[in-house]
Amino acid sequence: MKNLLLRHVRRWGDPVQDILIREGHIAAIGTDLSGGPGIKEIEGNGAIALPGLVDAHTHMDKTRLGLPWRPHSAGPTIKDKVDNERSIRREEGHDPAVQSANQVRLALSKGTTAIRTHVDVAPDLGLKHVMGVLETREAFKDVIDIEIVAFPQQGLINTPGTAELMQAAIEAGADHIGGIDPSLIERDPVEHINVIFAIADRNGVGIDIHLHEPGELGAFSIELIAERTQSLGMQGKIVISHGFCMGAISEGRLQHLIDLLVENDIAIMTHAPGGSPFPPILKLRQRGVRVCSGNDGIQGAWSPYGTADMLERAFLLGYRSNYLKDQHIEEMLRICTQGGASVMGLGGHSISVGNPANIVLVEGASVAEVVTAHRPRNLVISKGRIVAENGVYTN
Amino acid sequence: MKNLLLRHVRRWGDPVQDILIREGHIAAIGTDLSGGPGIKEIEGNGAIALPGLVDAHTHMDKTRLGLPWRPHSAGPTIKDKVDNERSIRREEGHDPAVQSANQVRLALSKGTTAIRTHVDVAPDLGLKHVMGVLETREAFKDVIDIEIVAFPQQGLINTPGTAELMQAAIEAGADHIGGIDPSLIERDPVEHINVIFAIADRNGVGIDIHLHEPGELGAFSIELIAERTQSLGMQGKIVISHGFCMGAISEGRLQHLIDLLVENDIAIMTHAPGGSPFPPILKLRQRGVRVCSGNDGIQGAWSPYGTADMLERAFLLGYRSNYLKDQHIEEMLRICTQGGASVMGLGGHSISVGNPANIVLVEGASVAEVVTAHRPRNLVISKGRIVAENGVYTN
Repeated sequence: MKNLLLRHVRRWGDPVQDILIREGHIAAIGTDLSGGPGIKEIEGNGAIALPGLVDAHTHMDKTRLGLPWRPHSAGPTIKDKVDNERSIRREEGHDPAVQSANQVRLALSKGTTAIRTHVDVAPDLGLKHVMGVLETREAFKDVIDIEIVAFPQQGLINTPGTAELMQAAIEAGADHIGGIDPSLIERDPVEHINVIFAIADRNGVGIDIHLHEPGELGAFSIELIAERTQSLGMQGKIVISHGFCMGAISEGRLQHLIDLLVENDIAIMTHAPGGSPFPPILKLRQRGVRVCSGNDGIQGAWSPYGTADMLERAFLLGYRSNYLKDQHIEEMLRICTQGGASVMGLGGHSISVGNPANIVLVEGASVAEVVTAHRPRNLVISKGRIVAENGVYTN
Repeated sequence: MKNLLLRHVRRWGDPVQDILIREGHIAAIGTDLSGGPGIKEIEGNGAIALPGLVDAHTHMDKTRLGLPWRPHSAGPTIKDKVDNERSIRREEGHDPAVQSANQVRLALSKGTTAIRTHVDVAPDLGLKHVMGVLETREAFKDVIDIEIVAFPQQGLINTPGTAELMQAAIEAGADHIGGIDPSLIERDPVEHINVIFAIADRNGVGIDIHLHEPGELGAFSIELIAERTQSLGMQGKIVISHGFCMGAISEGRLQHLIDLLVENDIAIMTHAPGGSPFPPILKLRQRGVRVCSGNDGIQGAWSPYGTADMLERAFLLGYRSNYLKDQHIEEMLRICTQGGASVMGLGGHSISVGNPANIVLVEGASVAEVVTAHRPRNLVISKGRIVAENGVYTN
């Protein structure tokens, strides 16, 4: 079913129109459209039509979705969490292909049609997680776009063999190189950044680095990242994920960091953490910094939270930032749609003629109200196919 | 329909049992119960059964639910917001009876079976809002418990005539006396606190005071409130709502404030604001302070946010506090059920034989997972009546 006629929907809050889908693409938008004989028609009843949601930062290989509930058991430090996760994986025989497929189905039921996922690469895992997520990407290629970042969760300087595995991950099909707290975890910021930039540069791929480092320590890492981006000419290919330091630093230093992001077209990913400072989203957007968002881990060993819902995430971005105005709340939803699409290099991510038909129908009085209420999705269409109805995955 | 037999549900995550409801009360809990001939049976399919959710802090008279969407238009100060709200009310002919009824229906659909609502009292309104909410309370008395706090939104020291109206509100049927930032808004902390305590003491009712004041200014207000509570012997009858100052103060001062709360059995209400500090919930609970929560305003002139969902609120309490352990997440749900019931003086607020049948069925792997996932409610029973199914109000 890649031909459909959606009747009476409001594209991003526009007046009611019809949307005609042919061969998985948007063929026409207008009033009283005709789909021709035999085409399936869906009555939208004035629901708002959004472009597909984009989860630009998650860890699909880590989720425990579908497994028996397991109370959170990790200690407070990052090392506690890494050790705890490794122990649980061994005990449970964790299968990253099965787990990531569970998350894809849940994500599609919430209207997510594209995902960038960080996937653990480490000597004790080899490429097992990368291969598992590649299997899921292949299985769901007709209904979702998936990008894989080879992620050195345990560090690569302090975990010998990881860098070589990251190169192998790229050769196996991973799209980008990950990184993690160059000082806080790796204890050698220059060496960590040199290694990940070297792998990325050699392979012509991008970098998406986890940066949880606080205050001036994190700011120093951003400076180093910007310097390498400039010297290697990798503008537009780098994402800093989290960047907590930007939420708790002096205004002058913040503006300096934003200057560096702008000059080097470095994008920022924030999921609006509940208990940590995070970047001032509108300040970044007002300066033209590309911002995307994601759900981070979904119900795994690191955290019991996570609904895989990027519309709820748009709400959380606005709620945590105390943004009240419609245009600001709408901007949070743009970050969770076009913002992620931009970082993932997905052109044509809007409901426009000629673009792939990635469309989410949801009830609401306005785009802002759709975000604040974040009701279950009436219908999700991905690449022209109906993949979920009334919040339930149906593909 | 006040006789029902719920089959195969898990009371607060317990093993599967049946729950028999007779005449609006829980008559039996066990396996293979018989309801007798003709009783309506409902198959729970292993859903988790929670006691009714309690929204212990909202503003039902202010919501714009059901009215055409209106982008947020207030300026940043409290005075901006008060003036903006008054202007919108005049323009729209705001009807607090209609609006509060809309909120009650939405709240019931999410499983809330008891509400404490602050209701504006001011010279330009007289008792119009109190009378409107009293009308709603009467209309829904068979399905929800509603407490009314006479709330001096515009201040009572700086808005002459308000104190007399608050007395009149109590005489008309309001349950408690409200208050608001004694220094920040009222500019005379001692006088404000003296007046509200005098009205409450004279009428033998409790106090629920909005306290947004930051840092040491808020701490000073808590000290004054504790002193009056002790001198008037009003222990157990006072709630401090918000208490943002407790989330951003030195550990020593915090412990002093907690001592005062414990000594005077003063309860704390927090809704886990997105952009402000808020009290450290588990620290309060570990010292035995009663804590409740609420949704605050729902889609009104003050904020476009609000889903009226106290299960989502339990999630937000845990998310904002970064609580990861099952017992801590469960405590957030207790705050959103028993915590509110305690503050509202609702005895018997648990799923136990003899108690009123206020029961919420929701799918989940565990109580903690029910909170983190906060799915739509399968069924809501309030005072023995089915009031919502599959997230939709049906009464």
